Amino acid sequence: MAAPKHIEEGLDFTPKFDANGLITAIAQDAGTGEVLMVAYMNDEALGLTLKTGNAVYFSRSRQKLWRKGEESGHVQKVQQVLVDCDQDCLILKVTVDQGQCHVGYQSCFYRAVEKGSTDKLTLTAGKVYDPAQAYKKKS
Amino acid sequence: MAAPKHIEEGLDFTPKFDANGLITAIAQDAGTGEVLMVAYMNDEALGLTLKTGNAVYFSRSRQKLWRKGEESGHVQKVQQVLVDCDQDCLILKVTVDQGQCHVGYQSCFYRAVEKGSTDKLTLTAGKVYDPAQAYKKKS
Repeated sequence: MAAPKHIEEGLDFTPKFDANGLITAIAQDAGTGEVLMVAYMNDEALGLTLKTGNAVYFSRSRQKLWRKGEESGHVQKVQQVLVDCDQDCLILKVTVDQGQCHVGYQSCFYRAVEKGSTDKLTLTAGKVYDPAQAYKKKS
Repeated sequence: MAAPKHIEEGLDFTPKFDANGLITAIAQDAGTGEVLMVAYMNDEALGLTLKTGNAVYFSRSRQKLWRKGEESGHVQKVQQVLVDCDQDCLILKVTVDQGQCHVGYQSCFYRAVEKGSTDKLTLTAGKVYDPAQAYKKKS
């Protein structure tokens, strides 16, 4: 469980990428504290995020860099990058506009497991934009 | 990027475990919104969490169930379990006492990348308890 002391207590940023070269990154609204989404970064995506101030991820399904907002316009302005004790997970504190999840909600976490159930969900939020409009192809 | 519609829009809870049988779980303070830690669950850990109301994870390093707080006493009372659009990540909204990270901080995310730097961290929090006391072996 515990990582070496210099990793946990030190002030050198040494992000630990997994066997696929990725690190988990949580995007959290810097204002409200709402967790918006969880994605992954490779070394290049992390470097671009730190350099540009806009969140850049690595899409596992597409196996390429994913500049958040490049299609939808819903960019994430990164205010702060936090790292956890064993440096294998990041939080990006971000400033965002309305509508971060591609399904149409502000956050990807719009459903909760029903109390007393193990297999039923209940909606906890309403949609804030129409993804069909945001992602429509330019003619 | 997009999962099938019934996964994204449906109300059946069908958590997607990865190749190792694990799903990422974020513990977030139900009161303050602070992200406390990120861990992993297998199917059994998730089932026990839902059944008991206390967070149970699967320790990747120890390859066994990890009943959060079993050694430290810092249990997590689960108020709500949220799932994201493609159902491969969970948020546990938890009620906790003081001191969730084994290093001594309230959250595992106690360091941020320094502004303008790519390799230096700065502390963003102070320790809230002495882990040497919390984890000491019973004589």
